[in-house]
Amino acid sequence: MNYMKCFPTIDDIRQAAERIRPYAHRTPVLTCQALNAMSGAELFFKCENFQKVGAFKFRGACNAVFSLSDEDATKGVITHSSGNHGAAVALAARLRGIPAYVVMPENAPDIKKTAVAGYGAQITFSTSAPNARETTCGRIIEETGATFLHPSNEFLVICGQGTAALELCEEIRDLEIVIPPVGGGGLLSGTAIAVSAVSPHTMVMAGEPEMADDAYRSLQAGKIIPSGNPQTIADGLRTSLGDLTFPIIQQHVAEIFTVSEEMIIQAMRVVWERMKIVIEPSAAVPFGAILSHPHKFSGKRVGVILSGGNVDLSKLPWN
Amino acid sequence: MNYMKCFPTIDDIRQAAERIRPYAHRTPVLTCQALNAMSGAELFFKCENFQKVGAFKFRGACNAVFSLSDEDATKGVITHSSGNHGAAVALAARLRGIPAYVVMPENAPDIKKTAVAGYGAQITFSTSAPNARETTCGRIIEETGATFLHPSNEFLVICGQGTAALELCEEIRDLEIVIPPVGGGGLLSGTAIAVSAVSPHTMVMAGEPEMADDAYRSLQAGKIIPSGNPQTIADGLRTSLGDLTFPIIQQHVAEIFTVSEEMIIQAMRVVWERMKIVIEPSAAVPFGAILSHPHKFSGKRVGVILSGGNVDLSKLPWN
Repeated sequence: MNYMKCFPTIDDIRQAAERIRPYAHRTPVLTCQALNAMSGAELFFKCENFQKVGAFKFRGACNAVFSLSDEDATKGVITHSSGNHGAAVALAARLRGIPAYVVMPENAPDIKKTAVAGYGAQITFSTSAPNARETTCGRIIEETGATFLHPSNEFLVICGQGTAALELCEEIRDLEIVIPPVGGGGLLSGTAIAVSAVSPHTMVMAGEPEMADDAYRSLQAGKIIPSGNPQTIADGLRTSLGDLTFPIIQQHVAEIFTVSEEMIIQAMRVVWERMKIVIEPSAAVPFGAILSHPHKFSGKRVGVILSGGNVDLSKLPWN
Repeated sequence: MNYMKCFPTIDDIRQAAERIRPYAHRTPVLTCQALNAMSGAELFFKCENFQKVGAFKFRGACNAVFSLSDEDATKGVITHSSGNHGAAVALAARLRGIPAYVVMPENAPDIKKTAVAGYGAQITFSTSAPNARETTCGRIIEETGATFLHPSNEFLVICGQGTAALELCEEIRDLEIVIPPVGGGGLLSGTAIAVSAVSPHTMVMAGEPEMADDAYRSLQAGKIIPSGNPQTIADGLRTSLGDLTFPIIQQHVAEIFTVSEEMIIQAMRVVWERMKIVIEPSAAVPFGAILSHPHKFSGKRVGVILSGGNVDLSKLPWN
């Protein structure tokens, strides 16, 4: 299965929406007068923190897993993400009744090991040597014939991620801007395709951590310039764009705003305090972008994608 | 205005629902498979943490404030709650355009002073001497003619609080149990009247902190036995039943379960982690009761009222 260079269309996203409907939540869209007052904009929050496994990642993983032929499916799926994508692949595989292999570094936090194991995946630990996880993945693929599912630079994953914005645009009309966060670009590229097709007057923007600003720099340079091991608190956004996500973003995304670590933490805290919902640092980046660049959003109807809510409650960034 | 000894009926609660409709949120009812699996019950969470001012208290305060005659209203309203009821009275008064006076102890936490002041109330500080706050209230009432709004033992407040359960029973049919927390009993007595009228086969129960178990003991004894300055972490539930709430609870409430401090904190954390919503310790008490007494709830359809979400995020009980 090689979809590289073949770009998803709105029809692919609509098919993904049908495919995942029995398994994924149609998440609610929340509003908050306090945050509207604070930003001067009218904000509509698409709450993917309420999605299965606590993140939008379930949409893409679910679409990919349920697209496999029965023959491929029985061999299982594999990924090397220890974060939300790993949990999402594990749950999607369990729902289809097939094996999931997740490769993670020995030193991954216990909370992540527990989450992925809790969804029934088989974990294989890799050393911290360069390319160790790729080598380990390669070995397991050779042994099992499992299908590798990249967290972002993958046709079916992008289509799945685009279903969140599709739902948002169906529910809230006349949005002037839709803004997700950007890491590897799976959510942003899926959002861009969905929004530009179903709501062509809506601009797609993105929020990105200053400390992992490869998408911002790549758009400026007109070519992919990856970040080198960035340590932003927004741990879901440390990966860089890929050769599938970058051209989609180049074509459809109007502007990327970088956000300081301090502003990410402040935005996250405000959402917890005023909206009474738990979001992870990555999910706070778009609202951080809005607070950092109020003149770009003031007076506008803005759809904000809250990407996830998986946080270690014993280690909150403001404590 | 003296409604003492006159008990609210379902018609009073329906009138309250009409009265507060333009101002209060109709809060969502959320479900969570993980919490169902953990408890063995089918749980429906009425999310009053998403209510205005972050707590159900807005319903009662709003009903009371908008029931005042124009002549009484112009003189303002007064209370001595420094918690959610104080904020609720302040906001309701602002919405009606009348003065709100809130008496609080000098040593109240800054976060509470800021919240109440932020809603536009005039704060008067009282000393920590016994009866100081009552004396201060009395003085202000004499000077201004403001109407005192008790946080729980007040006809119109009870009617307002009952609207949450009314909405819950309208939205989710065939609940076998509805369980709010109990402190002063305003929420519990309003819930009891609403549920017994619109869904007579549904049992009303309550969760109460072990450390502030006056409602449990009062029901056993057949008379009000107040708690003496209890220090439970569930700060919204430290007050005791009153002469209006007690007989309603006696008549309609099937059972009260006491919950340990440890279980309150555990239940609170599970809700944050799995439901991705912020609730305060008081709001976790009913779910703590369910986890403590699984045989009472297992296999049943249970409506759980999450009473509020106001927490100091710098002081979480598990840190």
